[in-house]
Amino acid sequence: MRLCGSADADIFRALPRVMKSAEEFDQKLTPPEMAMCVHRIVREECKCADPYKAVKAKAIRAVLRREDSVKKTIESAANPFRSAVRFAIAGNALDFAIFDWSAMKFDEQLCSASEKFLDEAALDRLEAAVKAARTIMILGDNAGESVFDKLLIEQLSGKKIIYAVRGGPAINDTTMKDAEASGLDKVATLVSNGCDAPGTLLGRASEEFLGYFRSADLVISKGQGNYESLSAAPRKIFFLTQIKCAAVTRDLKGRIGDWIVAEGGADKTRQKNIKGHVL
Amino acid sequence: MRLCGSADADIFRALPRVMKSAEEFDQKLTPPEMAMCVHRIVREECKCADPYKAVKAKAIRAVLRREDSVKKTIESAANPFRSAVRFAIAGNALDFAIFDWSAMKFDEQLCSASEKFLDEAALDRLEAAVKAARTIMILGDNAGESVFDKLLIEQLSGKKIIYAVRGGPAINDTTMKDAEASGLDKVATLVSNGCDAPGTLLGRASEEFLGYFRSADLVISKGQGNYESLSAAPRKIFFLTQIKCAAVTRDLKGRIGDWIVAEGGADKTRQKNIKGHVL
Repeated sequence: MRLCGSADADIFRALPRVMKSAEEFDQKLTPPEMAMCVHRIVREECKCADPYKAVKAKAIRAVLRREDSVKKTIESAANPFRSAVRFAIAGNALDFAIFDWSAMKFDEQLCSASEKFLDEAALDRLEAAVKAARTIMILGDNAGESVFDKLLIEQLSGKKIIYAVRGGPAINDTTMKDAEASGLDKVATLVSNGCDAPGTLLGRASEEFLGYFRSADLVISKGQGNYESLSAAPRKIFFLTQIKCAAVTRDLKGRIGDWIVAEGGADKTRQKNIKGHVL
Repeated sequence: MRLCGSADADIFRALPRVMKSAEEFDQKLTPPEMAMCVHRIVREECKCADPYKAVKAKAIRAVLRREDSVKKTIESAANPFRSAVRFAIAGNALDFAIFDWSAMKFDEQLCSASEKFLDEAALDRLEAAVKAARTIMILGDNAGESVFDKLLIEQLSGKKIIYAVRGGPAINDTTMKDAEASGLDKVATLVSNGCDAPGTLLGRASEEFLGYFRSADLVISKGQGNYESLSAAPRKIFFLTQIKCAAVTRDLKGRIGDWIVAEGGADKTRQKNIKGHVL
């Protein structure tokens, strides 16, 4: 609420409502389900349907200013697809539920994108899955990040691409309007995931979303919120994310700040591990 | 609770109780008053009167191992008193409500103690106040930090020193037992502040504490919790602390990580500023 410029009076009205909501949470809810409840209260107390609108627009503009330069780096890389994957994960830093905007820190992320440690064997499997796929569904996360997703999609020529956005404002995540501002409508079929959670809740998703989700040859999920809500989903998914909290470090056996390419979903040999929270 | 080794079941029982308590907080309470309520619940759900006992003992041992070396640095400094003040502020990093224990990070704090930026004019005023005082009261904060307070007290020879500890376990703050483990009973009169808040609540303090607090020529308050509860106290106080949260950055016009020597309290010319949250 401070990030959105709310007055103290609004914040102090929201706080006890958020606490009451948190007190009553079913402890089996995923973090995006809890955040959905909290941010519905935030939007009511802000008296604003999309309080992070300006924050999102600023992030998208900041990435668009760097788009040409990043595109050149990708296109001149030995493997442009893998380079684009790396920038798509770098973009996951544009998460203003967690970080403050810092042009310096963001540019550090971009500078380190080509060298940052990634599981290269998982990247091999992702690259093979992309080659074999005709339809690819990408689940978007933060608004600024979606510009990098567009650059990744440009490396997926010849494929049918479906890009899923949040069904309504969810912190600084990509909605239909934000995806259009990033230019994603020119490279993908945009679909709403039907819900205003900062994640993907299959139980609340639209039939349109579920149709694509079931039938796509490959699903690539961006960010921690989608991971938290889909890590035990009933189909195979490739997750691209940065690790941002202690619970996910335990789940993915990594550290905060790690960049992740991980497979999860319905592969029978993996199902047990996924239920037990190890991908 | 994770730091204390609590089981998930205990944590998930405590969480809704903490939320309910937070929901009902009078928003005029100071952070230590709120933390007092929260940590009473934590102690009940841990089924342990002093859950951070092992954490405190470990921190005290870690500082005692470095005591001789720090003492030599202080005694060989051009101004041993000012050097001891610097280490007393360095020790404020041993706050396990906020930071994880890291020997490396702690040693970095000690290495930077002599050069870290401090308000030298405020240090001049503190030094003059010490020279003029016969009775000095020090309000302790974290258990590990109290070993450094002992080294500071050793630079106050010829003065009557009263060292105030928490009236009961309050996160990892110094209680009577912890102060004895640090060796403070050998250099100061120990007094309980009468309360299990991680701060100093004058409204809950014992008559013994208040007697010293009113009559001491000089009061030196350690740490953010004491600052939060005493920044508008009805007497002059010198605060030594590190800044650890956004609210205090606004209050003290500093940044997170800054080291602070600041005066607050009943000096008439300052009273107005203190009420308006600027020291």
